[in-house]
Amino acid sequence: MESYKTLNPTVRTLMGPGPSDIHPRVLSAISAPTIGHLDPQFIAYMDEIQDLLRQLFSTQNKLTFPVSGTGSAGMETCMVNVLEPGDRVVIAQNGVFGGRMADIADRLGAEVVKVEVPFGQYIPIDAIQKAIDGKATKLVGIVHAETSTGVRQPIPEVATLAHEVGALLLVDCVTSLGGIPVEIDQWDVDLAYSGTQKCLSCPPGLAPVTFSQRSIDVIRNRKSKVISWYLDVNMLLNYWGGDRVYHHTAPINMLYGLREAVLLILEEGLENVYARHQKNHQALVAGLEAMGLALFVEKPYRLPQLNTVVIPDGIDDAAVRKSLLTEFNIEIGGGLGALKDKVWRVGLMGYASRPENVMLFLAALESILTRQGTSVQQGKAIEAAHVIMQS
Amino acid sequence: MESYKTLNPTVRTLMGPGPSDIHPRVLSAISAPTIGHLDPQFIAYMDEIQDLLRQLFSTQNKLTFPVSGTGSAGMETCMVNVLEPGDRVVIAQNGVFGGRMADIADRLGAEVVKVEVPFGQYIPIDAIQKAIDGKATKLVGIVHAETSTGVRQPIPEVATLAHEVGALLLVDCVTSLGGIPVEIDQWDVDLAYSGTQKCLSCPPGLAPVTFSQRSIDVIRNRKSKVISWYLDVNMLLNYWGGDRVYHHTAPINMLYGLREAVLLILEEGLENVYARHQKNHQALVAGLEAMGLALFVEKPYRLPQLNTVVIPDGIDDAAVRKSLLTEFNIEIGGGLGALKDKVWRVGLMGYASRPENVMLFLAALESILTRQGTSVQQGKAIEAAHVIMQS
Repeated sequence: MESYKTLNPTVRTLMGPGPSDIHPRVLSAISAPTIGHLDPQFIAYMDEIQDLLRQLFSTQNKLTFPVSGTGSAGMETCMVNVLEPGDRVVIAQNGVFGGRMADIADRLGAEVVKVEVPFGQYIPIDAIQKAIDGKATKLVGIVHAETSTGVRQPIPEVATLAHEVGALLLVDCVTSLGGIPVEIDQWDVDLAYSGTQKCLSCPPGLAPVTFSQRSIDVIRNRKSKVISWYLDVNMLLNYWGGDRVYHHTAPINMLYGLREAVLLILEEGLENVYARHQKNHQALVAGLEAMGLALFVEKPYRLPQLNTVVIPDGIDDAAVRKSLLTEFNIEIGGGLGALKDKVWRVGLMGYASRPENVMLFLAALESILTRQGTSVQQGKAIEAAHVIMQS
Repeated sequence: MESYKTLNPTVRTLMGPGPSDIHPRVLSAISAPTIGHLDPQFIAYMDEIQDLLRQLFSTQNKLTFPVSGTGSAGMETCMVNVLEPGDRVVIAQNGVFGGRMADIADRLGAEVVKVEVPFGQYIPIDAIQKAIDGKATKLVGIVHAETSTGVRQPIPEVATLAHEVGALLLVDCVTSLGGIPVEIDQWDVDLAYSGTQKCLSCPPGLAPVTFSQRSIDVIRNRKSKVISWYLDVNMLLNYWGGDRVYHHTAPINMLYGLREAVLLILEEGLENVYARHQKNHQALVAGLEAMGLALFVEKPYRLPQLNTVVIPDGIDDAAVRKSLLTEFNIEIGGGLGALKDKVWRVGLMGYASRPENVMLFLAALESILTRQGTSVQQGKAIEAAHVIMQS
């Protein structure tokens, strides 16, 4: 056979839009011995994982479990189970992932009404109200933390609007869960999904989801069969919900990793985790601003875990990111869709949200921009960030 | 917070229908440092993984890649991309997984014609011909290695029948790939899927698939959009097929494991791997028969990697499996569907197909059955197996 080198990925500092840095305990957990998906020990781990996810989502929802796929599979799971052809759906879109929701609803034969605002803006509540328009609506979908833009969207008012017309509220928590508060029960959210590779700091491959009783009632009253076998919650209910009836073989080792990742968060304490994300974000912003760079999103709507930075005129986006990667082993993200070449996406997610990452990134970026001949303020960023860290 | 114990799954010998024993090199690979899914190093690994999977499937198909889900997601990927409502589909069913194919086709609105034979039998070619009935058919689906029964199904004649009426041939290779020869190009198979947790001896979570040019042409000529966004090959083609356009975040660490697992197989050599599976199977059968137990499947149709053993009258299935697990840390499977309480499913898959596993299992089973008061032949099984191993 042809020769292949020994697997030896470089240790990177993952400060893009995900995957984020993985805690050593999580990497260790995923290499624990594989046991069977029907082994009593594994069933006990399943119970624990569901319990841990409920704490993370702040919910009592019984049907809270990780879908065996990545975040987008979580999105599809929520939508394919509740939507039927002809259903009216309102989707709020201010980035790539709202657009994905609309695409999925359209494929499922729903009548999609979009509330669109430019990338990087938050979606005003009255625009959503106008789109709902007092009409019977099956689902209102919105992204809590837009990974493509760094915008944080307030949720509770949207729930009220949705429920007024009997609609379910679907919230994308891919980038929010574990980074900023997610209060499924308090906000009265019906369906939510997340991913493991953002603020949970677990490798990608699983999508935690949670379904309210209201959404389960909708599923039980469907006229047609759920079109996806793999994502059919009626069957997943028997596997994750009660009798552990075999449906598909769960990704055992990934689930070990998820269990460990959520344990790490809860051991630190949710409030402490949120405060850490906020502080490191403030330190990063102080450093960037001291360097003369601007954030893309207005202050009240900024996500602490995903910072979009305006690329100054005349800067070669790809060259900067390549230097960060090859010289300093730092990964950040470029802009997606309408924001291509316009912003950098700097993640401080989960285990990656650490003072040393903020310092390393600021120092590396200043060095690269200076060499590119940009008129950045030199020697100010580190000190500005440090002041925040000490505060 | 509530206290949770340190993750500490018992080391089991996995001789069920999957997951199978995982080679230490694979467990080590999946805990390698996570890098980004758009990192040039990861892109290079993606190329290698596709190349390795082509060797395993014996195909030149460009569109050969691992779906980010378990084996059933692979099944659904193949079907959701080629089927449209009203399509005529012939599904050969002699076990649980043929039934699952029919279920998925039905959900997609296809007109499903089933060829059913009892669990444990192979499907005669003339029964398939009769079901096709010379009519224009979109897809013929069949399981190469029925995980629920241990039956091996000949494939090449089915391909000829399917192509005569312009149908695509879909083959379930979940349990066959890496255990018995799978010759996608030589047999002229259009769509095939597998799973990682059977003869590849990798943890569950990925589904290798391969699509022929003929099937891609069918997808390109669809009238309707693929109903699943997550599994839409039109977009996956841009990610796995050429430009590496971001679609979803690939399960990085699981892919490290898959790369290592396939490397292990190719380093040993496909022919050697198949011969090893065959020999350990023969040793197991010799031992079981010496003990007085019978195999459920007729000899010519037995899978070496999945052995269904008839449970003797008066034996408590669950009690035997529980003793195997709790006393000896051996996992085997019970019967599924129509075979519940009637058979044991003993896997010798991938890294689990080793002489020491055969010996351990025979010794443990003899001990348990003897204590249960069954009239098994004592002290013969080990010697009978050993004779085969030395031959």
